[in-house]
Amino acid sequence: MALQKAGYSGRILGVSSDDTIRAASERGAIHQRATLEEAAASADLIYLAQPISGILSTLDRLGSLPLRPGSLVTDAGSTKIEIVRKATAALPGVCFLGGHPMAGKETRGVEAADADLFRGRAYLLTPRSPADLESPAARTLIGWIRKIGSTVFMLTPEEHDTTVAYTSHLPQMASTALASVLAALPDDRLPIAGPGALDMTRLALSAYDIWKDILDTNGEAIDHALTVYIDKLTEIRHNLQTQRLGDEFEVAADAAIRLRRQ
Amino acid sequence: MALQKAGYSGRILGVSSDDTIRAASERGAIHQRATLEEAAASADLIYLAQPISGILSTLDRLGSLPLRPGSLVTDAGSTKIEIVRKATAALPGVCFLGGHPMAGKETRGVEAADADLFRGRAYLLTPRSPADLESPAARTLIGWIRKIGSTVFMLTPEEHDTTVAYTSHLPQMASTALASVLAALPDDRLPIAGPGALDMTRLALSAYDIWKDILDTNGEAIDHALTVYIDKLTEIRHNLQTQRLGDEFEVAADAAIRLRRQ
Repeated sequence: MALQKAGYSGRILGVSSDDTIRAASERGAIHQRATLEEAAASADLIYLAQPISGILSTLDRLGSLPLRPGSLVTDAGSTKIEIVRKATAALPGVCFLGGHPMAGKETRGVEAADADLFRGRAYLLTPRSPADLESPAARTLIGWIRKIGSTVFMLTPEEHDTTVAYTSHLPQMASTALASVLAALPDDRLPIAGPGALDMTRLALSAYDIWKDILDTNGEAIDHALTVYIDKLTEIRHNLQTQRLGDEFEVAADAAIRLRRQ
Repeated sequence: MALQKAGYSGRILGVSSDDTIRAASERGAIHQRATLEEAAASADLIYLAQPISGILSTLDRLGSLPLRPGSLVTDAGSTKIEIVRKATAALPGVCFLGGHPMAGKETRGVEAADADLFRGRAYLLTPRSPADLESPAARTLIGWIRKIGSTVFMLTPEEHDTTVAYTSHLPQMASTALASVLAALPDDRLPIAGPGALDMTRLALSAYDIWKDILDTNGEAIDHALTVYIDKLTEIRHNLQTQRLGDEFEVAADAAIRLRRQ
């Protein structure tokens, strides 16, 4: 939908379940249904938008299918080390470029699709080497990512997974933990939560099955980020009524401002 | 501004610094400047909208001024036990009703004023006894709170401070700690943060001087809420790759849904 809004006029094939294909056709997100085999044989770009475990198994399936020469396989998985490793092993000689648009929602499915979702967001790419960016198909993909309004950032798969453990996975765990603590309040107290509590618990609405895959493929880095966060909270608790908390507020506000400068 | 938008046609006096009075007059938020003494002698309602320490010292000053008979003093402080205690001591025989609109912003001042800020929000009142709600002035105040679009909740000052330690003060500390952890990332990694990280660090933009007062007057309850949160995060860290985390996601999502049912 974002591609079409940005002026893309090529055909878009959809490979998915009956329900998703029907909903995607109704919303005009795809032009035609295809099997993975049909799509692999004809597509210039194969875009894997599934939970991580789905991407890993589709990469395996693609490995046994004939792909159109010069085509590019990319994905939108939330972790990259395992996906890039799998693509390298399953698709030798095929152009693959790992991707991760930083544009999630707590809802998903075609019903939640939004052609403007990518606008103003970072779109991370994780080439295995600079050569991964040089093919005509890769240049075309990067061009369209910019046309849908995203800013492209290049990271190695390792840099990616370490960084998103802090910028994406830690915020999720912090939100889930907070909502879980608030769950213990008496039911008639919950409606008095202000906008701050709503912001801080939005991510807690996310579905676990997506997160299960993220934890399975980036558990160590998330464990580390959580440890740092718990240490920081403990430090804050010990300094609640001292000037050190004032310093902490300044450091935090400065980081929050820098986060908003994209 | 909210009152006027809701149809209030009485005069609104402003007691504040030169700059604030000028800005408030320009925006039409007040009709006239007054000293605290002038306002106390003539107002039907005295609304204290200051940081908590300011409210406490204004209550002391009001104690030595003649108030118009039948008038009501209320406030918008973020904690209630100390304010209600001070009002009881400093203003014997005067109608006082503690209040707390759950409608903050991370910005403040007249520049950030918004006539729709209270719409759809909870407005907490903390009567010392049911009699506090029976005076004509109290009934009038409650009527206008509803007219500006808020839902009124009654709590004792103790219930209030314990509850907001979880629903308001804990989210602030969680956000400040998260932004402070993200501050340690390399500068070129911060722009890749997604919308989740932005939501989770909005509160970290808040000014410390407001929070210093909150911590000074509700430190024990906040310490307790932080301990519960740290324990929950530790439990989550120990269960990152087990089904117990799936259960935690369900409990958290359920609470996040209930928080949104106002």
